[in-house]
Amino acid sequence: MIKVGVVGATGYAGEEVIKILVNHKGVKITELQAVIDKEELFSSIFPVFKGKVDIVCKKPDPDAMAKNVDLVFLGLPHKVSMDLAPIFLKHGKLVIDLSADYRLAPDVYKVWYGIEHKDKANLPGAVYGLPELYYDAIKKAKLIANPGCYPTSAILGIAPMLSHKAINANYIIVDSKSGVTGAGRKPDLALSFSEVNENLKAYKVNEHQHKPEINKILSEVAKQPIDIVFTPHLIPMNRGILSTIYLKLTKKLDTKAVIDIYKDFYKGKPFVRISDEGKLPQIRDIVGTNYCDIGIKVSGDTLIVVSCIDNLKKGAAGQAVQNMNIMCDFAETEGLI
Amino acid sequence: MIKVGVVGATGYAGEEVIKILVNHKGVKITELQAVIDKEELFSSIFPVFKGKVDIVCKKPDPDAMAKNVDLVFLGLPHKVSMDLAPIFLKHGKLVIDLSADYRLAPDVYKVWYGIEHKDKANLPGAVYGLPELYYDAIKKAKLIANPGCYPTSAILGIAPMLSHKAINANYIIVDSKSGVTGAGRKPDLALSFSEVNENLKAYKVNEHQHKPEINKILSEVAKQPIDIVFTPHLIPMNRGILSTIYLKLTKKLDTKAVIDIYKDFYKGKPFVRISDEGKLPQIRDIVGTNYCDIGIKVSGDTLIVVSCIDNLKKGAAGQAVQNMNIMCDFAETEGLI
Amino acid sequence: MIKVGVVGATGYAGEEVIKILVNHKGVKITELQAVIDKEELFSSIFPVFKGKVDIVCKKPDPDAMAKNVDLVFLGLPHKVSMDLAPIFLKHGKLVIDLSADYRLAPDVYKVWYGIEHKDKANLPGAVYGLPELYYDAIKKAKLIANPGCYPTSAILGIAPMLSHKAINANYIIVDSKSGVTGAGRKPDLALSFSEVNENLKAYKVNEHQHKPEINKILSEVAKQPIDIVFTPHLIPMNRGILSTIYLKLTKKLDTKAVIDIYKDFYKGKPFVRISDEGKLPQIRDIVGTNYCDIGIKVSGDTLIVVSCIDNLKKGAAGQAVQNMNIMCDFAETEGLI
Amino acid sequence: MIKVGVVGATGYAGEEVIKILVNHKGVKITELQAVIDKEELFSSIFPVFKGKVDIVCKKPDPDAMAKNVDLVFLGLPHKVSMDLAPIFLKHGKLVIDLSADYRLAPDVYKVWYGIEHKDKANLPGAVYGLPELYYDAIKKAKLIANPGCYPTSAILGIAPMLSHKAINANYIIVDSKSGVTGAGRKPDLALSFSEVNENLKAYKVNEHQHKPEINKILSEVAKQPIDIVFTPHLIPMNRGILSTIYLKLTKKLDTKAVIDIYKDFYKGKPFVRISDEGKLPQIRDIVGTNYCDIGIKVSGDTLIVVSCIDNLKKGAAGQAVQNMNIMCDFAETEGLI
Repeated sequence: MIKVGVVGATGYAGEEVIKILVNHKGVKITELQAVIDKEELFSSIFPVFKGKVDIVCKKPDPDAMAKNVDLVFLGLPHKVSMDLAPIFLKHGKLVIDLSADYRLAPDVYKVWYGIEHKDKANLPGAVYGLPELYYDAIKKAKLIANPGCYPTSAILGIAPMLSHKAINANYIIVDSKSGVTGAGRKPDLALSFSEVNENLKAYKVNEHQHKPEINKILSEVAKQPIDIVFTPHLIPMNRGILSTIYLKLTKKLDTKAVIDIYKDFYKGKPFVRISDEGKLPQIRDIVGTNYCDIGIKVSGDTLIVVSCIDNLKKGAAGQAVQNMNIMCDFAETEGLI
Repeated sequence: MIKVGVVGATGYAGEEVIKILVNHKGVKITELQAVIDKEELFSSIFPVFKGKVDIVCKKPDPDAMAKNVDLVFLGLPHKVSMDLAPIFLKHGKLVIDLSADYRLAPDVYKVWYGIEHKDKANLPGAVYGLPELYYDAIKKAKLIANPGCYPTSAILGIAPMLSHKAINANYIIVDSKSGVTGAGRKPDLALSFSEVNENLKAYKVNEHQHKPEINKILSEVAKQPIDIVFTPHLIPMNRGILSTIYLKLTKKLDTKAVIDIYKDFYKGKPFVRISDEGKLPQIRDIVGTNYCDIGIKVSGDTLIVVSCIDNLKKGAAGQAVQNMNIMCDFAETEGLI
Repeated sequence: MIKVGVVGATGYAGEEVIKILVNHKGVKITELQAVIDKEELFSSIFPVFKGKVDIVCKKPDPDAMAKNVDLVFLGLPHKVSMDLAPIFLKHGKLVIDLSADYRLAPDVYKVWYGIEHKDKANLPGAVYGLPELYYDAIKKAKLIANPGCYPTSAILGIAPMLSHKAINANYIIVDSKSGVTGAGRKPDLALSFSEVNENLKAYKVNEHQHKPEINKILSEVAKQPIDIVFTPHLIPMNRGILSTIYLKLTKKLDTKAVIDIYKDFYKGKPFVRISDEGKLPQIRDIVGTNYCDIGIKVSGDTLIVVSCIDNLKKGAAGQAVQNMNIMCDFAETEGLI
Repeated sequence: MIKVGVVGATGYAGEEVIKILVNHKGVKITELQAVIDKEELFSSIFPVFKGKVDIVCKKPDPDAMAKNVDLVFLGLPHKVSMDLAPIFLKHGKLVIDLSADYRLAPDVYKVWYGIEHKDKANLPGAVYGLPELYYDAIKKAKLIANPGCYPTSAILGIAPMLSHKAINANYIIVDSKSGVTGAGRKPDLALSFSEVNENLKAYKVNEHQHKPEINKILSEVAKQPIDIVFTPHLIPMNRGILSTIYLKLTKKLDTKAVIDIYKDFYKGKPFVRISDEGKLPQIRDIVGTNYCDIGIKVSGDTLIVVSCIDNLKKGAAGQAVQNMNIMCDFAETEGLI
């Protein structure tokens, strides 16, 4: 039984981590912290947890939390995590950071997030927490950079083909559609119900901060520089990301052959499911789960991949717990199936 | 052709007034003002108006606006309108105020809105702009207190029975369900998509600030003090209010007889439609229109009334234009059908 | 480990039963049946179950199923269950019926469901599966009439006051709002997205078939005939029921005193939670859980109760599993928390 | 004043045509027909039309309708229109067909719609009713093949670049997202609220029947065979299509230069609006209007075009009325602005 804390417990990802941990056999939630007006029972803030998580949610104090946890999840905004992570690491605690702060090289970080990185000491040791690609490194990691939601859906949808060198690496288009929780829990007119409902928009077209993250990991997979075209869209639904990916085949492959490549690539990976020929995943197949479902359709030399995740599970909290499971020698699926 | 201005042009009610006026034959929109960061084309703020309303939306300056309008719509938050209305009135302009500032007696206002009324000079002359009850006074008014959305649906649903003294005046329950635009256009976590969607709640149960407004008007209709029970609910949809009203009959009346009372009461009123026996209105019957649709169901001595309006039309902007039409001798339905 | 089957596995309630049972430690799903075009893997019909429920869903054949189950859930339309239940009972199997077929006396059933009851032999032995009221009978039951969704929310919200004889028994108004899954999984224009979304309606006003069910149970609680006023509404959301209940106090009680009555009444009941004074439950507090959350507000002699459940959990599948847990000596909360 | 009839008046497109015509100064709706159980007032079927369209909706009888109309809108399913259109044409009436029946060459029609075309006599004379490309032919047409919703958004978004020969004609990807009314008004489990809400899916990937329609028209524009990649998606909203289009520039052009090409191409076209640099259209900008709003973003040699329409207006009924306006010498925008 390990002791776990969550900083940023009142954000969507933090809340979701706690929902998962409540049913996890190997952990005890000992500390919750968040930027709140007054410290009160977590179950007073979120009545859904009444009778389940009746501990006080406190204001952020990493040193205090560090005394009472073995591992901490940071569900914080970008630029804030890198202030807290070093404190927990200094105390010898395991850190799983759900922000973008430890995902990019410092120069790239500066370009996309607008400020100098504040924890260059720990940055090189951070492991990108995508278990399907970096399982061994995660197992030994002290600090996990938990992947972004868009990157998880995109990378898992593209990696097998790049790895097999079966597509044109200069022609990768990712058209992603996301539910609204992906934008975080905050007062924002652009996220208010009456603005989002019965609406739909593309935003930050080819300029979203998740693009360099996708490029970085795909470049590692391809062993050559990758630069995708990436358009995110905001969809009037709470949860889920569906990425429609357009690739150009460089080898003659039919749908079945490509499906075999994906099934082979993800063999033994408990949270990736490849759809049978003629079927494509949809959000309802994965919502509430930690699965990434991937569907394949070949049409001439065009390969269309549909990759679906729950942005709060495999795209955030679920993957974070999956990483914890690997780091702490729990079954990889504990609490998640 | 009269010249019209809108203060609060970027709120939901203000935007809706402008949408209606664009197709109104008797007016020209000459001035738009709102609390905005920078003055720019209204059609830049709301691209839906490109090619239709390409005038600059300015920051609030009532004296400047007064020089170029005959009538002004105030689509402002409560407590702000009463700062501006007197300025327009001083300039001899007609004012239609969509806030609650001129709807209540000053002592009641203070109780429910928490501050002393700041324009007691003009308050007594304000006319409650519910044309189905106060047509003659509206025709002569200089200042209209445009009714609230909940009150419009509730009062129109109850007034005929109180007027006919056919119900127990001490037993009036109004259970109202509203779309989210009713709460206004502002950054507010409680109104954000991910909080409202797939959710439903009662709020301010029997304590909503629209309750004294309903009580005041119904008391005038009944010629006795009325105190209703009122529960508003927030529904995950953009527009519309459906009020389910529970009354106790003091006379033996069947559904058909009650329908006749309503049809008689609203004879000649172009925006109230009474459903035929066995039918009840729903939001889709009135959304986008200025109608109030009312359905009737008698069961024993219980009378259940279902009253539906579009909260932004008959519940705000549409009714405001209806009032303007009456004040300015346009056809009552101009721009609205 | 008991063997469990589900007939009607492809309906919303059936699917939800299966979702719960997947994580239940005491059962093994051995048989699934439904009215389907072709027999195939359940996880082919619902890909969300891939890797979890990979058994074939067959066409209905109760005798065949009875050979391989200890207990069966019937997630079938009204009027169909009473054809199948006797077959399972004859085989000595426990039956939990989620339809209305075993909830009413035969004469009342005929009035509201339009046909003569076809299993009058087993009807008298059926136990109404509301554990908060009938725990002891459920423990010994062979056949459970699992309560309707509206009745669960209404009865749990009213029973404590009737039991304490603290309200006027002739004055009970239940205004219920339900998500769309409550109407079942079927092709129906009235349930199609474009008809329901951005819409809201009252339906079957005081004529819904759940009204006699509520009346029957409340009459047993009150030990006098009860006849409520009941209006259901269809809300554009997938899941959840919120019932706003209006009662007249016959004793002088404030909000706190009433809360105490409810807390006392539901003491030791794991799935009823009473909100603290000044707070009211909303759908998001209970969605996905088996809780019934109840909030209390006294205003003069009016008592307003807000009662929330997830219609597919406490309103159907969750309550069904809760009944199974009691019948089979599992922990009452197994699989449900 | 011309006399107009609508066959298929109870479908979403038919209903929308009628909503537009109610406010059109040049027409009188004289006949409504639809496949219905009983003939009744159109305003009984759709109460929103009470007081506005109080004529009887009859069962289909083209010969009877032809006696009392000058022009007819056919809002019928594919394969049905071609049975009725010839009858109206024989009577010398103008026909605007909203189905796909007159959009494709007979051999292509057979491949995609599965049956032999039944009106090869009139097919060659049908004019594709996209006024931005075929204005002159529409002016002289007797039979209009009103474009599909996806094709309208796609063709208007691509045509300027093909016409300017500024893109690689072999590399055109259209990723379209549509609201649910695009699928028509019918009982269908896949379109039911609980299946569509909180869900999202790609469907008929590169196999949708609108693909050959887009290819045909773009081939005419490009004067060479075009074969696009086309993925439609179903979005949980009622109305609107947003197409994200990926093109490869063959000339060095920046965003501003491409915007100029589009502005020039659509000069004088009242219903196409090109967004300023740095802005992109969203559904709320066009919903309820007949506009197609187009946004441009160049990134390296990739051109991303975002094209938005209301699927029931510019994508169906609005465009149909626009065609009528051109055919009948009304102002092109009459009834539509």
